[in-house]
Amino acid sequence: MAAWKSLQNGSLEGISRVPDLDASKLTITLANSLKPMPAPESLVFGSVSTDHMLVVSFDPSTGWSAPEIKPYAPLSLDPMSSCFQYCTSVFEGMKAYIGPDGKARLFRPEKNMARLARSAGRCALPPFNENAVLTLIKRLVSVEKRWIPALEGYSLYIRPTIIGTRAALGLAPSDHALLYVLVTPVGPFFRQTPAKPVSLLAVSDSVRAWPGGTGGHKLGLNYTPGLLPQRVAAKKGYDQILWVLDDVVSEAGVMNVFVVIKREAGDGVDVVTPELDGTILPGVTRMSVMELLQKRGTQVAERKVTMTELKALSAQRRLSEVFLMGTAIIVASVGRIGLEGGEGDLVLPGPTPVADAMKKSLLEIQEGRVEFEDWSVICDDD
Amino acid sequence: MAAWKSLQNGSLEGISRVPDLDASKLTITLANSLKPMPAPESLVFGSVSTDHMLVVSFDPSTGWSAPEIKPYAPLSLDPMSSCFQYCTSVFEGMKAYIGPDGKARLFRPEKNMARLARSAGRCALPPFNENAVLTLIKRLVSVEKRWIPALEGYSLYIRPTIIGTRAALGLAPSDHALLYVLVTPVGPFFRQTPAKPVSLLAVSDSVRAWPGGTGGHKLGLNYTPGLLPQRVAAKKGYDQILWVLDDVVSEAGVMNVFVVIKREAGDGVDVVTPELDGTILPGVTRMSVMELLQKRGTQVAERKVTMTELKALSAQRRLSEVFLMGTAIIVASVGRIGLEGGEGDLVLPGPTPVADAMKKSLLEIQEGRVEFEDWSVICDDD
Repeated sequence: MAAWKSLQNGSLEGISRVPDLDASKLTITLANSLKPMPAPESLVFGSVSTDHMLVVSFDPSTGWSAPEIKPYAPLSLDPMSSCFQYCTSVFEGMKAYIGPDGKARLFRPEKNMARLARSAGRCALPPFNENAVLTLIKRLVSVEKRWIPALEGYSLYIRPTIIGTRAALGLAPSDHALLYVLVTPVGPFFRQTPAKPVSLLAVSDSVRAWPGGTGGHKLGLNYTPGLLPQRVAAKKGYDQILWVLDDVVSEAGVMNVFVVIKREAGDGVDVVTPELDGTILPGVTRMSVMELLQKRGTQVAERKVTMTELKALSAQRRLSEVFLMGTAIIVASVGRIGLEGGEGDLVLPGPTPVADAMKKSLLEIQEGRVEFEDWSVICDDD
Repeated sequence: MAAWKSLQNGSLEGISRVPDLDASKLTITLANSLKPMPAPESLVFGSVSTDHMLVVSFDPSTGWSAPEIKPYAPLSLDPMSSCFQYCTSVFEGMKAYIGPDGKARLFRPEKNMARLARSAGRCALPPFNENAVLTLIKRLVSVEKRWIPALEGYSLYIRPTIIGTRAALGLAPSDHALLYVLVTPVGPFFRQTPAKPVSLLAVSDSVRAWPGGTGGHKLGLNYTPGLLPQRVAAKKGYDQILWVLDDVVSEAGVMNVFVVIKREAGDGVDVVTPELDGTILPGVTRMSVMELLQKRGTQVAERKVTMTELKALSAQRRLSEVFLMGTAIIVASVGRIGLEGGEGDLVLPGPTPVADAMKKSLLEIQEGRVEFEDWSVICDDD
């Protein structure tokens, strides 16, 4: 039973205990006809919908409904719905891979579930049983298993989403919600081998996240303000934006940033990444790279990284690598950073041994070719 | 013809000229049966849907569709839609009143149209003909005229909304969109006469808007981060939050803030309001109050207002009034402000002659009882 407070204008009016999300109540309705599979090479990230989706709804009087896996279909929502008007919307990004044993695998999915719950709380959306949602996602992946391309670097991208569906224009937390999960087959983010380094444009006049804001949670709204600046960056010939707040490096596009610094003494490298000060998304890939580096004897320092520092390190030929990570991209090396104020580009020298090793290690674990702790989770029923 | 750039990942790929929004293509389909009218006294803000709504859609290959006024109905959208995933959503708040001549009137609607266009641009949503949308809103108000309560202080609240409907998970501007307009009958925000003063809780650990952010635009996403802090404020016994950023006063809840200061010389008052530095919504009521005060010989100073200043003025017994404004609330006086750090409440002394005069003037003009420039716009066809 989840405690849920009936809210109107943010005040607490009455407390009811309503049924929590229960995976055992799942019903599965299969599609009458299945869609044709596109050729893996033709896949554009996130553009193909599969045959089925998972849907569960929340009503403050009856709690979470019986979950349904059913044919992929449009959502029908009142035009006043909270998600349209007040952007009550949170999501996760996960991937399922086919292992050498033919089984579908998820990568540290409990981390995504915990973050989804935190995100929902930040938007005042109803709480839910994280284990139940994970169980349901595993079932959905099993039902959609034919959609996982069994090719190296390919996977089934999973998009759990929760939207507020309270149908009223008065500004208040959404006491109705819809939790749904979509899956879509994806190829490697970069098709070329080796991948072309990413170019970043440093931007500080537009700000993605700030102290006291929501940048540390995975809310849909964190992605909107970047759409226009991203268009400008692309026009200037850069792949992504490097968000800079008062000289402090934040994220790149929607990815976490790592910096590899040659020690002054010449006896190796240090790795640093921006600290989780509320402006940085606590990425699952970020956390995993930190742990993998630690296993190799490299402690990643979480601290403020400034553009001034990057420029100084570059001038001293000590800026060895800058690399980015996220569920979609996994790991990508940065080739150059366009500086503000007409200072030109800060060029990374290459090669990128740390980024390359991290990408290889992650993929091996994600695809089930190498066992590492309990990171790869089998989701097949059979 | 609107220029529209087909966008993928923010890059400009091809430019096409597609049909702009054309009000002359409007089709009207009336509901078979009309809904019963609730008693005006029972109205809860924004909770009643009327019989009809206006809908227009945008497709990058065919442009804006022929507008439709049709029976109020759910929206059917792909679950991948941009508005669910990336919060591409903008809106406006307007009101229609019945004048003494029995005609429906809007208040400075062209200001809302201009702001809606700016908001859409900030979210990289397609541009549209502002005059066409205003013409269509007038038609909708005429069709729904029976829903405007002909009582002083009552009106028909109008909610123009644009949402991104691109159905793909790859992060990119939404090249598909839906523009729709809802109307809902509303009563006075405060039922008591005289209205009870509003209590505010100063909050600076949670931040609504930031320089370089989107607080100066009317995006749905600006309203989400406040839902949770608002719940906390309500629990502590305050009506709304006073957003404070580094000691600087921003907005209260979703309303603009004005401060009335007694001059040291005792020869009258000065009125100040936070400057439009990108963190403040350029409110239509804000602008109107500034113009009304100027007509009365009071120039409103737009400048930074700090909590330190408010506390000092209060100690000097020079803090005469703090009042709030917005389309929904019109004008409301503040009774007390809960200070951070256990400093207790800053209590406003009352009476509130400036706020009272502004509320009276605005309502007279909005309801068509007093003509003032071209602020009140008749929207009846007949």
